[in-house]
Amino acid sequence: MKNYIVHDEWCIIEEGFHPEYNEITESLMSLGNGRMGGRGNFEEKYSGKTLQGNYVAGVWFPDKTRVGWWKNGYPNYFAKVLNACNWTGIDLEIDGETLDLARCEVSEFRRVLNMQEGTLERSFVVKLPSGKSLKINTLRFCSLKDDEAGAISYSITPLNFSTQAKLTVSLDGDISNKDSNHGEKFWNEISKETTHGECYLTLETKKSKWDSVPTFQVCTGMKFECFKGGESVDCQTMPIKKDKYVANEVKLSLKQNEETVIYKYAVNLSSENYPVENLTAEAKNYLARITAKGFNQMLEEQILTWKAKWEGNDIQIDGDVAAQQGIRFNIFHLQQTYTGEDSRLNIGPKGFTGEKYGGSTYWDTEAYCLPFYLSTSEQKVARNLLVYRHNHLKRAIENAEKLGFSNGAALYPMVTMNGEECHNEWEITFEEIHRNGAIAYAIYDYIRYTNDENYLQEYGLEVLIGIARFWSQRINWSSAQQKYVMLGVTGPNEYENNVNNNWYTNYLAVWCLKYTLEALEKVKSNPFRYEQIVNLTSFDETAETSKWKNIIKNMYFPYDAEREVFLQQDGFLDKELLTVHDIAEHRPINQKWSWDRILRSCFIKQADVLQGLYFFEDDFSVDVLRKNFDFYEPMTVHESSLSPCVHVIQAAKLGKKDKAYEMYVRTARLDLDDYNNDTEDGLHITSMAGTWMSVVKGFGGMRIKENTLAFSPFLPEQWQSFSFRVGFRQNALQVAIFHDYITIDNLSETPISVLVEADRVTIKGLETVNIPH
Amino acid sequence: MKNYIVHDEWCIIEEGFHPEYNEITESLMSLGNGRMGGRGNFEEKYSGKTLQGNYVAGVWFPDKTRVGWWKNGYPNYFAKVLNACNWTGIDLEIDGETLDLARCEVSEFRRVLNMQEGTLERSFVVKLPSGKSLKINTLRFCSLKDDEAGAISYSITPLNFSTQAKLTVSLDGDISNKDSNHGEKFWNEISKETTHGECYLTLETKKSKWDSVPTFQVCTGMKFECFKGGESVDCQTMPIKKDKYVANEVKLSLKQNEETVIYKYAVNLSSENYPVENLTAEAKNYLARITAKGFNQMLEEQILTWKAKWEGNDIQIDGDVAAQQGIRFNIFHLQQTYTGEDSRLNIGPKGFTGEKYGGSTYWDTEAYCLPFYLSTSEQKVARNLLVYRHNHLKRAIENAEKLGFSNGAALYPMVTMNGEECHNEWEITFEEIHRNGAIAYAIYDYIRYTNDENYLQEYGLEVLIGIARFWSQRINWSSAQQKYVMLGVTGPNEYENNVNNNWYTNYLAVWCLKYTLEALEKVKSNPFRYEQIVNLTSFDETAETSKWKNIIKNMYFPYDAEREVFLQQDGFLDKELLTVHDIAEHRPINQKWSWDRILRSCFIKQADVLQGLYFFEDDFSVDVLRKNFDFYEPMTVHESSLSPCVHVIQAAKLGKKDKAYEMYVRTARLDLDDYNNDTEDGLHITSMAGTWMSVVKGFGGMRIKENTLAFSPFLPEQWQSFSFRVGFRQNALQVAIFHDYITIDNLSETPISVLVEADRVTIKGLETVNIPH
Repeated sequence: MKNYIVHDEWCIIEEGFHPEYNEITESLMSLGNGRMGGRGNFEEKYSGKTLQGNYVAGVWFPDKTRVGWWKNGYPNYFAKVLNACNWTGIDLEIDGETLDLARCEVSEFRRVLNMQEGTLERSFVVKLPSGKSLKINTLRFCSLKDDEAGAISYSITPLNFSTQAKLTVSLDGDISNKDSNHGEKFWNEISKETTHGECYLTLETKKSKWDSVPTFQVCTGMKFECFKGGESVDCQTMPIKKDKYVANEVKLSLKQNEETVIYKYAVNLSSENYPVENLTAEAKNYLARITAKGFNQMLEEQILTWKAKWEGNDIQIDGDVAAQQGIRFNIFHLQQTYTGEDSRLNIGPKGFTGEKYGGSTYWDTEAYCLPFYLSTSEQKVARNLLVYRHNHLKRAIENAEKLGFSNGAALYPMVTMNGEECHNEWEITFEEIHRNGAIAYAIYDYIRYTNDENYLQEYGLEVLIGIARFWSQRINWSSAQQKYVMLGVTGPNEYENNVNNNWYTNYLAVWCLKYTLEALEKVKSNPFRYEQIVNLTSFDETAETSKWKNIIKNMYFPYDAEREVFLQQDGFLDKELLTVHDIAEHRPINQKWSWDRILRSCFIKQADVLQGLYFFEDDFSVDVLRKNFDFYEPMTVHESSLSPCVHVIQAAKLGKKDKAYEMYVRTARLDLDDYNNDTEDGLHITSMAGTWMSVVKGFGGMRIKENTLAFSPFLPEQWQSFSFRVGFRQNALQVAIFHDYITIDNLSETPISVLVEADRVTIKGLETVNIPH
Repeated sequence: MKNYIVHDEWCIIEEGFHPEYNEITESLMSLGNGRMGGRGNFEEKYSGKTLQGNYVAGVWFPDKTRVGWWKNGYPNYFAKVLNACNWTGIDLEIDGETLDLARCEVSEFRRVLNMQEGTLERSFVVKLPSGKSLKINTLRFCSLKDDEAGAISYSITPLNFSTQAKLTVSLDGDISNKDSNHGEKFWNEISKETTHGECYLTLETKKSKWDSVPTFQVCTGMKFECFKGGESVDCQTMPIKKDKYVANEVKLSLKQNEETVIYKYAVNLSSENYPVENLTAEAKNYLARITAKGFNQMLEEQILTWKAKWEGNDIQIDGDVAAQQGIRFNIFHLQQTYTGEDSRLNIGPKGFTGEKYGGSTYWDTEAYCLPFYLSTSEQKVARNLLVYRHNHLKRAIENAEKLGFSNGAALYPMVTMNGEECHNEWEITFEEIHRNGAIAYAIYDYIRYTNDENYLQEYGLEVLIGIARFWSQRINWSSAQQKYVMLGVTGPNEYENNVNNNWYTNYLAVWCLKYTLEALEKVKSNPFRYEQIVNLTSFDETAETSKWKNIIKNMYFPYDAEREVFLQQDGFLDKELLTVHDIAEHRPINQKWSWDRILRSCFIKQADVLQGLYFFEDDFSVDVLRKNFDFYEPMTVHESSLSPCVHVIQAAKLGKKDKAYEMYVRTARLDLDDYNNDTEDGLHITSMAGTWMSVVKGFGGMRIKENTLAFSPFLPEQWQSFSFRVGFRQNALQVAIFHDYITIDNLSETPISVLVEADRVTIKGLETVNIPH
């Protein structure tokens, strides 16, 4: 745990330069706008530790799978998030000396991610080896308003000299992915051009050996201007072209104590959104449009757009700055990563903050991220996350066929970019199939929150039928048990592989069948559409539904009658049942134990049975939850970033306040405090949604009950109060929890009736109620 | 199945050139002598399909592990068998035309592996594009007598021209491994020299990043002579040196219808056997010695040495040439691969016939190969196989420590060269731990065959203690079952991974504990040595043995009382129980099914429960065997080359003659007929020992009973008779099985008493008995 980030309510602040942590800081201070983004790299050359990263949403490369020992069914490629053209470069050379913070004396250094305004600022004084001193101030953002553009203001003030300096303002496309499987570079140059103060570089992803995989073109363009004393100045510029690189060298007269400001505007347009033949022309138009606005107007718009975002989703915590900073940090990065404008996009595990893992979509989206966007964004945002999976249904069916399934059974991939499976560990790829259920659950979750039952007709039912078919083929009849069983799976707890009858997966499978039956009935209210879907999916209602009903009736669930707990899987009680306290010095076990030792131990990576009790809480009493929580939580090592949030929610429900708070602390500042020693690779974007859930569903106790919002809050004793904003259908509510009472503001004109600790409370439009608790 | 190899009792014959199968033929016609060997490549340049391979025993390279997703505990490197200097090269150029069988018209082609004499012959007539015709005859062998040397006779007869030809006689060390993980080459050149008619090339394996791994040097030397009409002729030679290559170019006057013969002698001396500073000098001495003998004497010695080998281990099958050829092919390659002279060497899965898999030692050695060498070779050969594992005990202890074991517990690696684990699939590396029991079993097997109980004192007990400690730590107490259980293993049937309570492994573990207890008692008869071992191993007799006894008493074994069969593992009966007939069009499943489908199916790769009933047959009645065989064999797909032999032995015991013969056919000509479409990669050397066992233990019914040999033979009805030679302690026996009677020749002067179908039969020295049956 590194403790160098200053605690602040709205900002992430590095006070004084910490070169040893620079890659961590770069991750923390990443910027994005849903379409493009990148790490908090310096604009100028830096020869110290750095991981340079710029990314364009939806642009990827099918890197050839790397494998130790091939297994049938492994995918050919792994879709990599592509590290793309670096549009931020502004290098400064003064009388032959390069400004490089690794080779100069740096003082008064301050780097600030301003989350309220969506900007990254940096200021420092630097002394070159020759003794020349300069003051530099930078400000950068990725525009939320113009979401294919970014802008930089770079200010230079010589403190003890005057000279003619050389500035190089560049677009550098000679980029490689750090995690390239076979050391390849992924970009080819298509075209470049440069005039004075303006550059364009179009790159194309290399043609892969897989015909089904498209290539992508990205045109990056930039323009810059120099200002002194608020006035635009003309500079002598020289165009430079190198392989996959285009720049302007600028002769810049620097005068002691006179500030020169360079405004750099950049755009990234991809062939996903524009015809390739127009890319450069569109980039020119786009750039012309934003430079006409100018830096200050763009910045103002950025601040306003973020203000509006925060109004919809801020969480305030009173009395704990670290917790306040942590929760805003999580919300900020979630909003930067996915804006829900485009149903072809999804929420990559590292967003725009790093390239690790590849792929853009995991079950994290459905299980952890969806609730966040449901409550904090327009309905279409969550809906687009669902439509994304509908778009991939055909590929999910093909994916299942590769594994021997038939008749339109669909298995969604573990990791994907375009719907094809990318991951290649058999125990995950082929066996961690509960992901399929999470996709069905997300449809249910979306509809219960939004009441948008129409979604079933439009998209949902087709997906549900594919998923139900998969489960009905994946189970088999056990003559020995006279029950249906599910063999050879990996549950959410990935510290067990290839187990039989994982309770969570069995329960989820049966739930999917039930929900699909319900959905069928609902869609039948529109006979025309129902008939269409039956034809589209070659659905044999009588035969298929009777099989499903049979499975629902006869599924096997492992259970321990003595302890009255569901068993994580067959044979779980044969393990040596220890608790995490017994192995304190062995943690984290994923770094200290060999895989077999982890597997045969009782230790649990993340909620598994408890994940099921979280998803389907209405099916179980609090007593059942308590027994299972008390049995499993003490064995849980929480070595997945997705683990603590579910436990916060359940501990809160069980009134285990200390446990809830302990778990919350683990999730809220995971990246800020670099708990897992891996923040340098990028942030844990999807687990950030879990942190939001911890507050709203955990401490806030928010649920959907009786077709409305319900709250059952508790205030951690470390806090004075906390409040959060949620949108629910026509309404927006501000909910504040104090020690003795709860305040709910209805921010909309429509009245709303909610449940607070089981009591129905009606709040008129634009009114506030206070409820003691 | 390719049917181009001519059926012949003693030879493997390719009649007419089959370039499309050339890589297969190269594998089949590999030559070796335990120290060096190589594939049946042509001497002259060949631009067609070929896999060039020459290997020097004990010389390897630690190729960096390639992995898809790293797991804790994986080894850093994978020890690769090294493709080494090609010493066979003799290139011929006639008036600018190169002799290359891929570019000429070839007729009268015949390639013959003469297994009786241990030689590879080739003859053909070739017409060059210009119309010039030549007749070529070659003969090559790796000398068993001088086991660091090989020799070639290469005869050239122009049929329709005379000219001055150019011959290049070379040593080519610029070799790469086809299976290099990262495309690296593994050899550096140390020195080379050449004079007229003589070349030396010393190569060293590259320094790896692992300090514990030694580098190896190999000096390859060659000398050649030209003969016309039986007379040595002087030729004009020109030395040639290139990187990692040294040769002589020879101007050769060829006269129409006059035969010129080149004798090429080569040696491969490795730093494993000579001080590096003497390598070249030793190579010179060695070469001088063999060239002084001359080709013909070397050939004569080769024939005599092979004759002696065959006298000790031939199997004759009367009435089935294909079966006769098949069994001799297997015996021949086993004898070429391992001679038992050096306890640092072992039996690689491909021997000297290819480089696939890497490593030299698998559990195949103990479970399949040991019985062959026990019966067909001097006692020291089998003993050296055991000592090899004793030599690696320290590393086996370190290997176990890496996986969390302690107190001298030893886990032998799945695949190794120097005692360190090389394989990196968690389900195999960490979980296929039954290999450890096979190493204990081999000690037992060796002692019961040889009566060499002294071995326990010398080496055996230390190894047994390490293995027993491993098992006692690997199991755990199940409170639920009130028994000891073993979780997370992979049994011999690798089509199940990470299962609980694999019956075979549980049984084997308990047997190891029992056998170690017995061994302790035996070694105690030598209190001084016993004390030594106790100190050496820090053995706490009271505590450790009482724990072992407790496990022996309370181990859990999965069993189905209804069917009266042992269960392969917990939950086996939850599977859909099909037979191989139900999935005819799906086979082989390892090519047609994804891994998860294989895992959750009931289908069995190779004997698992049945492997246990084979190892420990005296513990079980024939009825128990029958019930288990009838349950498991129909589910067995035999997709391991090690599978059929165990089933031959058991089917034979159960009187299932057709099944026994069906299984035998699968194993005996596996490579000759290329059943699995992979002979081109090399031969399945270790499974060849299984073929031998099929005949001797299966059809011959040979066992050790009542401290002597016992036979219970049956004659497959497809055969007239068969006979085999076995050595047993002081005796050598020739056993022949006819329809109505058995003949046993006692070839030694010592009388012997054996069991034939439960009757005791005493055979005087040098006598023969006929026993009706």
